[in-house]
Amino acid sequence: MRNPVPDYLHEILDSLRDDRAGAVADYIPQLADADPNVLGVALTIPNGRTYSVGDDRVEFSIQSISKPFAYAAALIDRGADAVDATVGVEPSGEAFDELSLEGDTHRPKNPMINAGALAVHHLLAGDDATTQDRVTRIVEFLSELAGRVLTVDEEVYRSEIETADRNLAIVHMLRNYGVIADTAQSVVDGYTRQCAVRVTVRDLAVMGATLANAGVQPVTGNRVVPPAVARRTLAVMAGCGMYDAAGDWLVRVGIPAKSGVAGGLMGALPGELGLGTVSPRLDTHGNSVRGVAICERLSRDMGMHLMEAEPHGITAVRGATVEGDTTVYEIQGVIHFPGAEAILDRLSGDAISTSTVTLDLTRVDRFSDVGRRMILEALRRLTLDGHTTTLVDPDTVLPDPDLGDGRRPVVHTSLW
Amino acid sequence: MRNPVPDYLHEILDSLRDDRAGAVADYIPQLADADPNVLGVALTIPNGRTYSVGDDRVEFSIQSISKPFAYAAALIDRGADAVDATVGVEPSGEAFDELSLEGDTHRPKNPMINAGALAVHHLLAGDDATTQDRVTRIVEFLSELAGRVLTVDEEVYRSEIETADRNLAIVHMLRNYGVIADTAQSVVDGYTRQCAVRVTVRDLAVMGATLANAGVQPVTGNRVVPPAVARRTLAVMAGCGMYDAAGDWLVRVGIPAKSGVAGGLMGALPGELGLGTVSPRLDTHGNSVRGVAICERLSRDMGMHLMEAEPHGITAVRGATVEGDTTVYEIQGVIHFPGAEAILDRLSGDAISTSTVTLDLTRVDRFSDVGRRMILEALRRLTLDGHTTTLVDPDTVLPDPDLGDGRRPVVHTSLW
Amino acid sequence: MRNPVPDYLHEILDSLRDDRAGAVADYIPQLADADPNVLGVALTIPNGRTYSVGDDRVEFSIQSISKPFAYAAALIDRGADAVDATVGVEPSGEAFDELSLEGDTHRPKNPMINAGALAVHHLLAGDDATTQDRVTRIVEFLSELAGRVLTVDEEVYRSEIETADRNLAIVHMLRNYGVIADTAQSVVDGYTRQCAVRVTVRDLAVMGATLANAGVQPVTGNRVVPPAVARRTLAVMAGCGMYDAAGDWLVRVGIPAKSGVAGGLMGALPGELGLGTVSPRLDTHGNSVRGVAICERLSRDMGMHLMEAEPHGITAVRGATVEGDTTVYEIQGVIHFPGAEAILDRLSGDAISTSTVTLDLTRVDRFSDVGRRMILEALRRLTLDGHTTTLVDPDTVLPDPDLGDGRRPVVHTSLW
Amino acid sequence: MRNPVPDYLHEILDSLRDDRAGAVADYIPQLADADPNVLGVALTIPNGRTYSVGDDRVEFSIQSISKPFAYAAALIDRGADAVDATVGVEPSGEAFDELSLEGDTHRPKNPMINAGALAVHHLLAGDDATTQDRVTRIVEFLSELAGRVLTVDEEVYRSEIETADRNLAIVHMLRNYGVIADTAQSVVDGYTRQCAVRVTVRDLAVMGATLANAGVQPVTGNRVVPPAVARRTLAVMAGCGMYDAAGDWLVRVGIPAKSGVAGGLMGALPGELGLGTVSPRLDTHGNSVRGVAICERLSRDMGMHLMEAEPHGITAVRGATVEGDTTVYEIQGVIHFPGAEAILDRLSGDAISTSTVTLDLTRVDRFSDVGRRMILEALRRLTLDGHTTTLVDPDTVLPDPDLGDGRRPVVHTSLW
Repeated sequence: MRNPVPDYLHEILDSLRDDRAGAVADYIPQLADADPNVLGVALTIPNGRTYSVGDDRVEFSIQSISKPFAYAAALIDRGADAVDATVGVEPSGEAFDELSLEGDTHRPKNPMINAGALAVHHLLAGDDATTQDRVTRIVEFLSELAGRVLTVDEEVYRSEIETADRNLAIVHMLRNYGVIADTAQSVVDGYTRQCAVRVTVRDLAVMGATLANAGVQPVTGNRVVPPAVARRTLAVMAGCGMYDAAGDWLVRVGIPAKSGVAGGLMGALPGELGLGTVSPRLDTHGNSVRGVAICERLSRDMGMHLMEAEPHGITAVRGATVEGDTTVYEIQGVIHFPGAEAILDRLSGDAISTSTVTLDLTRVDRFSDVGRRMILEALRRLTLDGHTTTLVDPDTVLPDPDLGDGRRPVVHTSLW
Repeated sequence: MRNPVPDYLHEILDSLRDDRAGAVADYIPQLADADPNVLGVALTIPNGRTYSVGDDRVEFSIQSISKPFAYAAALIDRGADAVDATVGVEPSGEAFDELSLEGDTHRPKNPMINAGALAVHHLLAGDDATTQDRVTRIVEFLSELAGRVLTVDEEVYRSEIETADRNLAIVHMLRNYGVIADTAQSVVDGYTRQCAVRVTVRDLAVMGATLANAGVQPVTGNRVVPPAVARRTLAVMAGCGMYDAAGDWLVRVGIPAKSGVAGGLMGALPGELGLGTVSPRLDTHGNSVRGVAICERLSRDMGMHLMEAEPHGITAVRGATVEGDTTVYEIQGVIHFPGAEAILDRLSGDAISTSTVTLDLTRVDRFSDVGRRMILEALRRLTLDGHTTTLVDPDTVLPDPDLGDGRRPVVHTSLW
Repeated sequence: MRNPVPDYLHEILDSLRDDRAGAVADYIPQLADADPNVLGVALTIPNGRTYSVGDDRVEFSIQSISKPFAYAAALIDRGADAVDATVGVEPSGEAFDELSLEGDTHRPKNPMINAGALAVHHLLAGDDATTQDRVTRIVEFLSELAGRVLTVDEEVYRSEIETADRNLAIVHMLRNYGVIADTAQSVVDGYTRQCAVRVTVRDLAVMGATLANAGVQPVTGNRVVPPAVARRTLAVMAGCGMYDAAGDWLVRVGIPAKSGVAGGLMGALPGELGLGTVSPRLDTHGNSVRGVAICERLSRDMGMHLMEAEPHGITAVRGATVEGDTTVYEIQGVIHFPGAEAILDRLSGDAISTSTVTLDLTRVDRFSDVGRRMILEALRRLTLDGHTTTLVDPDTVLPDPDLGDGRRPVVHTSLW
Repeated sequence: MRNPVPDYLHEILDSLRDDRAGAVADYIPQLADADPNVLGVALTIPNGRTYSVGDDRVEFSIQSISKPFAYAAALIDRGADAVDATVGVEPSGEAFDELSLEGDTHRPKNPMINAGALAVHHLLAGDDATTQDRVTRIVEFLSELAGRVLTVDEEVYRSEIETADRNLAIVHMLRNYGVIADTAQSVVDGYTRQCAVRVTVRDLAVMGATLANAGVQPVTGNRVVPPAVARRTLAVMAGCGMYDAAGDWLVRVGIPAKSGVAGGLMGALPGELGLGTVSPRLDTHGNSVRGVAICERLSRDMGMHLMEAEPHGITAVRGATVEGDTTVYEIQGVIHFPGAEAILDRLSGDAISTSTVTLDLTRVDRFSDVGRRMILEALRRLTLDGHTTTLVDPDTVLPDPDLGDGRRPVVHTSLW
């Protein structure tokens, strides 16, 4: 059977190929000379598989798409408190190149605007970091995310550094307020290299999937980002990633995303997928026209939207049977809060007359952290109520079932 | 076994009972006289079960928590285009009582600030609606959401209408710009009644759960809100619901929510739960201090956060076995996009040599819409490849498996 | 001889007659139906003489030109402290109809924008004033300024009151902040009548001349406005009178001025003249296109500009002669500070050997207050130095020359 | 006789000596170490005489007081159109160090805020100017204004250049918008030297008097600034000189003025005087506390206020007598527009029956330009009416009385 996913992606690209709206960024020759017809898309599933079609091997500079990843790196390097002291998380309602400092603290409003991204870059690699230290840190981090060695496009870097007045202005202002300590030249230099890292849509999709996958790079299996950092990065992307159109993006697309001036766009839907697109013509917000259209299609066609309600766990308790002195509850599916609640409700509602209570986890796909804790609490209470508790867990979906008081249920690998 | 969920909620309330920070709203006696110690919380699961503890039967006025529901009602009554022409969806970065009109269109920036909520109220019940029509519409709609008949607190209404200068100012300004046509008195009168509807935390939890449940009221089972309207309402709540602290809320809590000046707070996490809290002391943003703390606890303890990545479907294909001329693929879990993708990848990757391909859906919890469509496409392609396809679907999780060309796989209720 | 001033004014009007730029205000029929070709100008000299040409007898509604006069009336009725507590004096840099309240006090930024003018109107005629009291007060005050009985155009009033949403919005907001206590309807009603008073360009010129004349109506000779109130009113007009083009107006024209939406414009150059123009077509700032052009012509041709430096008094001491035991200083011109300083410098520099010192004031036009005080101080010091002082003051330009210690110089009416 | 003016100034300083409000600027040691008790004042009369008391020989850096003079120099070097293309003239309503660029053009709003002053500095000395050229130009210009050779305080310069981040930020932003072409370092370097020029209060008073005197340095008698440039500079100072307190300053003081962070303050009242003060403690607007108080005293005591109405010329026609076939009009005072108008009115109102008309100018102090033109026009018309016209002009106050058609009145030096 031929996999229909690539066909579907081809169909999307074909439907957009003749859309020539927008204009290529032209403030430096390296961007102005980009082929405006380049068009590519890639999806990466949390299991690490990537689908890509179109110009999926064309390299372009990552530009502002580096911002959320640099934010994640700074959170790792410095911790949330230090990062929060430097940059806020509120939407600015303004274009990416506005200064947008908070009135009292002079913090940049968020890390997705240039002021915030420059302050974040400055946090990389510790207090005494040099320009080179910061560049090395971010390039290695982006490489880890992509699962391959990424490099700086020196030509793009050199062009951008020549027209870096706005960024120099911002850093001087941040220095003036004590937000940044290093020289303006050093910070802008490092940041400009950060933005000049070359990527493909496949890289972007894998990088996005890492965030969507709670920080585990789905191809290498490495934990590149702690879960709390991945969650916070996605939250900030959702609120601030699309500049002054954040609300509209949340309504229409609902996928945390970030675009770059070279035409790239990266998205990450928690638990679902990472995506990358490229098409250099930009709309007036600075977002890739066809990249946005691809995201809208994916969101609409596939229900890929943060607010898409997929009720979990309603059917978590598949049934209960009494066999002799044992009541067996057959559990199924992914047991997150709603599933666990359903189990607890059933266990607390039933008048259990048998001495043994068995939870059959054979059909359980996975426990979330809270799901696991809730089930262990139920087992603890059943034990306190005088029941003997046993688990049937052939796939070890509930490893190390410590009830908190040292006791553990007996675990079997099959019901009989 | 005693259900641990209420115990958990009691524990949260106890930990907050001595927190006396904030101040009760005092602009009208009916709010100033509220008992500041009232404290209650309720959770509603998409299956309709509600847990509540503390002052869970105390009634208070819904106030601004009516805003997202009125927005949903206006979307139902007028359609998205008409609503979009009247009010935007962008965060305003300002307090709830700022005018915050867009520069060019003079639309209020979003429906969660007063200007937007007044414009939305004016849209209710059609073009020729009277004050009474609008009030009847919203009270009935809120009642449907709550699953019981709600009423207006006439005393609160009368007090608020006496100090309605700011809202009158806003409506006169919106009339001036042609955004509102009816008289200022009529619109403010109706809106003030909308805000004076009496609710409990249990009502709020059920109402929130309806949005979280894609619009189906989980107790009555009635579809009160179309899925697209529920999704859009949640998206606007996520971006604009907590006024000038929207980004911080998204990072720290990650549950779309809305607060009211009488101390209520309603949250809705798609597919997971609805929640209601009450505690009348407010912080400087106008949000209930202890209500916010409860939400933070729930989010932190239970991983209830929009960006919490719970990878779905990685293990969707439990295994494959060849029995004679049949290859049986055992599928499990909730089959949303990632699960379906995993199946498609396996089917397209395997060199299937048997003439029959069977998908065993016995362990499948549920298909999402896109998951269903992708599996049907796979079956269609397998058929075109010359395979005979059969389903084992004892629970009819894939009803009416039309392959699009009239053909259907054979469906069995058990594998053997 | 025919007076050339009217010829000059005719020449200005002729040069502008074919300028059809701008558009008549059209928000009410009474303004929309105005003859767009109406064109008139009037100048009033501080001595009370008025020159006027063109449509100088056409009546139109005073509109915003009432704002500075209402401000003067409120300063008279309430005192500067009470008025300052209600409305500021800073330019808003915004259009006339912006709310422009100060962040902390919620005072309207100045009395020339609508918010400020409504707050000022509310101050008229004392704390317990009714709508009718305020209207009576302002109409009588405007009539005193014009030197004839002015009346409200009831038709204009009725039309404007029907489209008063913006002003109602502003007053409700000011009520919300406690800046205004009366009902919104009452304040807007009174203010709308204030704006509907009918005037001609001759009226405006005389009213402006009263401010320019330190508050003395130049035709009736009545002191209508205290000097400090006139000065403050002119200062606020200079800073805020032309809305968001205040700086440009100060540079290009330099005459404190105020325009009205019916096409009128009133200017007042301290000590020099009052002027009124009418031409209903307005520019995008809401100022009369040809009215502005007339002011520019007058300023440019006649050096009528606040910053026009006309050095005073350099030649105040015409000469000194010694006749026997008397030194006679011949003084001339207007003796303001610079002239008085020149006299003091001469008196203190000369080694006066005669016992008598005589100031011959025959050629003195007038003393300003500070000039008078400085000369009396000089006479006192000369007396203390042992000199006998005498004045020659045939026109009594220095009446009652009390030296502060009861002594007075001998006054003669001629030198010999 | 001892001149009372210095006594008066001493009295003002004594009354303020114990006022310790405010704080010395402390962002660089050179300012932080200033003696906070320094207190001095100087007044310069348009005739060139300077009164000064207190610390009138103490030198301090001119700082922002250089801004209006640099604006005047740029107007001279480039013309008004080129300067207007670079910087606006509207009050910004913001502190001196806000960016305050206009939304569309990105011009700094006015030359009195740092952004405008940096752009203005960049205009000095022509298109190809180097840093040194600009510094030389402004130091020489300031020296010409002061009437002595001024120098840069190199220590202040070096300190300020080390903390110049805000100014560097501003220039990079202006470069980004194409408002400035030279390097940020060069412009900030030159501007910092401009601000570090050392002056005394006597210098400031003379420099202000030059502006007040229509551009003629009153000591040297050199025309340093063209009249139109002086007028425009004063107008911009009046509107924008005192930052966000411009309106209040115009109301309370009414003297165009500019303050500097080193404690200096310079004022210029057209036709009246220039003034300089020094006292290093600053209020929250950055203005010298005691400098402001001195200005308020001078304005209040001496009626020195732009809006002080001193009606001119009402008594311009002292009388008329008929002697034989001649009517003699005796004219007096300064003949600006109002005086000339009074003469024209009299000449056109009288039924003159004599063949000769004589204007006796013996008591005329001076004609303004418009006064001269009006009188010549009157003489022309009298001639056309058939009269013979003669002048009595012993002091040649109306030199070269060409009537425009080649004819001239007969001029006598005495009436008889």
